[in-house]
Amino acid sequence: MTLEAIRYRSGSLQILNQLLLPHQTVYEDIRSVQDAYEAIKSMKVRGAPAIAIVGCLSLAVELRAGAGGDDPVTFIRESLCHLTSARPTAVNMGRAARELMEFSENESMEKNSEQLRESVISWIEDMLERDVNDNKKIGNYGAQHILSGVPRDSVTILTHCNTGSLATAGYGTALGVVRSLHALGRLKRVYCTETRPYNQGSRLTAYEAVAEGIPATLITDSMAALTMREMNITAVVVGADRVVANGDTANKVGTYQLAIAAKHHGIPFYVAAPSTSCDLSLESGRDIIIEVRPPEELTSINGVPIAAPGVEVWNPAFDVTPHQLITGGIITELGVFLPSELQAALTGRLTAL
Amino acid sequence: MTLEAIRYRSGSLQILNQLLLPHQTVYEDIRSVQDAYEAIKSMKVRGAPAIAIVGCLSLAVELRAGAGGDDPVTFIRESLCHLTSARPTAVNMGRAARELMEFSENESMEKNSEQLRESVISWIEDMLERDVNDNKKIGNYGAQHILSGVPRDSVTILTHCNTGSLATAGYGTALGVVRSLHALGRLKRVYCTETRPYNQGSRLTAYEAVAEGIPATLITDSMAALTMREMNITAVVVGADRVVANGDTANKVGTYQLAIAAKHHGIPFYVAAPSTSCDLSLESGRDIIIEVRPPEELTSINGVPIAAPGVEVWNPAFDVTPHQLITGGIITELGVFLPSELQAALTGRLTAL
Repeated sequence: MTLEAIRYRSGSLQILNQLLLPHQTVYEDIRSVQDAYEAIKSMKVRGAPAIAIVGCLSLAVELRAGAGGDDPVTFIRESLCHLTSARPTAVNMGRAARELMEFSENESMEKNSEQLRESVISWIEDMLERDVNDNKKIGNYGAQHILSGVPRDSVTILTHCNTGSLATAGYGTALGVVRSLHALGRLKRVYCTETRPYNQGSRLTAYEAVAEGIPATLITDSMAALTMREMNITAVVVGADRVVANGDTANKVGTYQLAIAAKHHGIPFYVAAPSTSCDLSLESGRDIIIEVRPPEELTSINGVPIAAPGVEVWNPAFDVTPHQLITGGIITELGVFLPSELQAALTGRLTAL
Repeated sequence: MTLEAIRYRSGSLQILNQLLLPHQTVYEDIRSVQDAYEAIKSMKVRGAPAIAIVGCLSLAVELRAGAGGDDPVTFIRESLCHLTSARPTAVNMGRAARELMEFSENESMEKNSEQLRESVISWIEDMLERDVNDNKKIGNYGAQHILSGVPRDSVTILTHCNTGSLATAGYGTALGVVRSLHALGRLKRVYCTETRPYNQGSRLTAYEAVAEGIPATLITDSMAALTMREMNITAVVVGADRVVANGDTANKVGTYQLAIAAKHHGIPFYVAAPSTSCDLSLESGRDIIIEVRPPEELTSINGVPIAAPGVEVWNPAFDVTPHQLITGGIITELGVFLPSELQAALTGRLTAL
């Protein structure tokens, strides 16, 4: 069984409410752009790629029902503005909005309202299909690259945070690599860190693994180095919030520490990310600003306090892993590249390994 | 203000109930050996050194009230057996029981019941005083060693788990070093990991720091490497459950990962432990068996589930840090030693650095 976090059929959209996971599996109808806005804002859907696709699909649902009337371009523009404002830091929604707006304006010069609606719906449906296919390519490229080092054995993977169906349009990035290995019958086990403080590993990655029968073991973040030493880890595979030109990678806090531990144990460390997460406009990771989030994420769980009152807290959401520690490579839908090859590969000057 | 986890005056004993920390500060009377047994069993008091001292002090309280009548040796033997059975893995209680029993039997040959009771009470009170003094020596030796590398500056320390007044007879080991630095006016800040899965850092170390006005910042275990890179950490100081002959050290899970990250950043890594925690009968850390604890410690907090149902869990309580990573030294009440010097130092063939 494949976990469906987003259920889309022409004219209808449902999302898995992630606020209720892992304890309840509830799908909710998204009938309008406003429904999607509220679902994104309240974090019923999370993960930058998933936010973008749910936002755009909600627009497709309204357009299918004839929204925008004689002036669909204005409706599309206002809808995209509204959707982008729900979680402004989720860059993928902003990028999709810009691309879709440009497409709509161009189309509107040649087409009537009905034709325009159809074109935009197709563009959005293509986006969904392309994102999922890109993830499957990432999964396959990553799996083959890892397996090339161990021709016959099953492999054991360690991953961090949630990078699966619940964070993307479907299938996932780092967890997509794990899915591909499992589909090939070559995955012995995946170790998932719980990923404090927001517990995406214990809540979401563990949920996906249980739902699909992927052999998975949950550990605390502090056990990763011990797991590398004791459990014969073949590779560490993580996702990325942003990969910059030299290969430095911003990802969920804890990634940097995992990369150091992997290096210490001589275990290849991979970053899995679509090319849309690569930002060649930044030279190095020093240019990435780290978001610091509220202390309450550490000091309480579900509103119940778990720490000594009055203690100060530092809660950076991300860290930057220097490219030197990404020893396995960067897995994209175009292939697996060393950090030093990334820029050439993405600008078409290098083909897949 | 100094946090008192154990309040002892001749004939009376109170302990801070750690089950209610950090949200309530409640002292409970320990009037008998049975009271102490129940407090240890239910984890109102925890930490191997603290368990031993509370157990012995409860015996002193009963002896002060005349317990044992004409045959105090039998009463002492039965009491120590009972106390040792409360948490059999806490080795310090077992060691104290053996030593105290031997002392009692020797004394009983020359003294009457009343004199014997007085001797045993003195022995126990001396043990309390010696333990606290040893911790203060550890604190001072550690602070001086760390400060010798930074003659003028204030220092920033990173620590793990709880090694303070709440885990020992008083003052603490690694947290004792932090206390000494603070008392000298040379502590800029201590970063405490929350120490999943049992959260000794966020519950107990943070509580001690707030109670005494020590500048402290709580981080998740996954943020330690980032903290080392961004926050100018002077040294990492942790405690030990057991240090073996070659300096390999078993301590709370996550210690090994911290040591790797410290090495990567060129930050000195110290272990603080009394010589009673050093076990020269084991050659290397490979001989230490790692205790694996129940999955529920990861999958729920205060009985509330926090992980996907059905996921497998690995929950090792400790890990072993190889001596090569203990780059700062091992801080004991006899001085600070390199792992390679430990055996000679403890057997009297080497004096303090």
